[in-house]
Amino acid sequence: MGRTKKRARYEFTKGEKAGLYKAISNRRDVRSQFKPDPVPDRVFAKILNAAHQAGSVGFMQPWNFILIKDELIKQQVKAICDKANLKAAEVYEEPLRTKYLSMKLEGILEAPVNICVTCDPTRGGPHVLGRHTIPETDLYSTCCAIQNLWLAARAEGLGMGWVSILHNEDLKAVLKIPSHIIPVAYLCMGYVTHFLKKPELEMVGWRNRESLQKLVFYEQWGHTPNAQWRVLDRLMGKIKD
Amino acid sequence: MGRTKKRARYEFTKGEKAGLYKAISNRRDVRSQFKPDPVPDRVFAKILNAAHQAGSVGFMQPWNFILIKDELIKQQVKAICDKANLKAAEVYEEPLRTKYLSMKLEGILEAPVNICVTCDPTRGGPHVLGRHTIPETDLYSTCCAIQNLWLAARAEGLGMGWVSILHNEDLKAVLKIPSHIIPVAYLCMGYVTHFLKKPELEMVGWRNRESLQKLVFYEQWGHTPNAQWRVLDRLMGKIKD
Repeated sequence: MGRTKKRARYEFTKGEKAGLYKAISNRRDVRSQFKPDPVPDRVFAKILNAAHQAGSVGFMQPWNFILIKDELIKQQVKAICDKANLKAAEVYEEPLRTKYLSMKLEGILEAPVNICVTCDPTRGGPHVLGRHTIPETDLYSTCCAIQNLWLAARAEGLGMGWVSILHNEDLKAVLKIPSHIIPVAYLCMGYVTHFLKKPELEMVGWRNRESLQKLVFYEQWGHTPNAQWRVLDRLMGKIKD
Repeated sequence: MGRTKKRARYEFTKGEKAGLYKAISNRRDVRSQFKPDPVPDRVFAKILNAAHQAGSVGFMQPWNFILIKDELIKQQVKAICDKANLKAAEVYEEPLRTKYLSMKLEGILEAPVNICVTCDPTRGGPHVLGRHTIPETDLYSTCCAIQNLWLAARAEGLGMGWVSILHNEDLKAVLKIPSHIIPVAYLCMGYVTHFLKKPELEMVGWRNRESLQKLVFYEQWGHTPNAQWRVLDRLMGKIKD
């Protein structure tokens, strides 16, 4: 392989970098803007492959993807979610409870496709390389795949929302998921009328963006920057999201 | 905002999409190719902000980042890792044990920067929106941030490796992490001489790439495609990674 071709694979142009950062900063958790238009098979295969290209502990690739279009199954999942949502609302005091209940938190029925991403802790046998000390790394790897899927979907103009207000045991019953498999994410996906400019919970005043600068420590937990870290610290203080 | 400007924010050009997919498919878990060159502060701030832009359950943003350059701390982490690695090797029978021990699994000392990404399960108080049913979603959100970091690092020409062969209690002691905080990833990062074409464990014959087609089910666990899913299934069967 020639030097130029090699550089083309290893190095990113300004435009290529911009594409990645655009996906990262414009990705949203979508609940409300779904259109019924079907997702083309070619696009669907491409974004599933993006998920599959995530790294995984010991190259375990513990994920599976259950793709759902069936109305009856969607309705069953929606019922599970509604039940859990009413229960969740009980923990909030007024006026927060009314605000909570006024928010649309999932698009199960409106999104043309739902995707359940699962993790199989037994894949690769009992001795997965790198997983002896922290067994949860199988779940962590699955989440990396989900983030790839989310970003690829965004670049293709597809909105995606992660529904976490449901009990996994209920979901496993509906989707006939074996007992040893862990559902990690239930996702709703489809084209959207538009993407929100900021995270929805920030826009409606539920919670603010944390300051990145305050989330970063140096050398050990809680330590502020010494001289060699001070420029970086100052740069992070200037970031506007 | 004009229609053209709006489209520019919402829609991705062919080149922008290519940039994202290039980062996804060329991201590697790097252990061996680190160069000592320092990471410029401007680049470092940019990739940390990419991590911070990940979605999180209830907009909880449960992550912190401990940035490490100090040689003494790196050496302590390396010692923790070496101890765990020898223990891990014991589970393999020969000839696998020799193969395991011949592989370089971390670049703690060679990478100019190490990053510990943690998760604070208490952030956002006791009632984080969307986290009543699946409390682990705080960890899942943190992993999404890590994947953003990994992709952004790759686009900037920075290799990153995730070290999972260590005990979190040992790591918490060295980094003075409070008891309620969970270390999710210990990462080694720096510029590299080159990126491997395929995952290292695949290249050395430790484990093969799974077939994406076989990992996808339809409507319910284990179900093969019915007529409406058949084209997608066939497309996935043709994917070469």
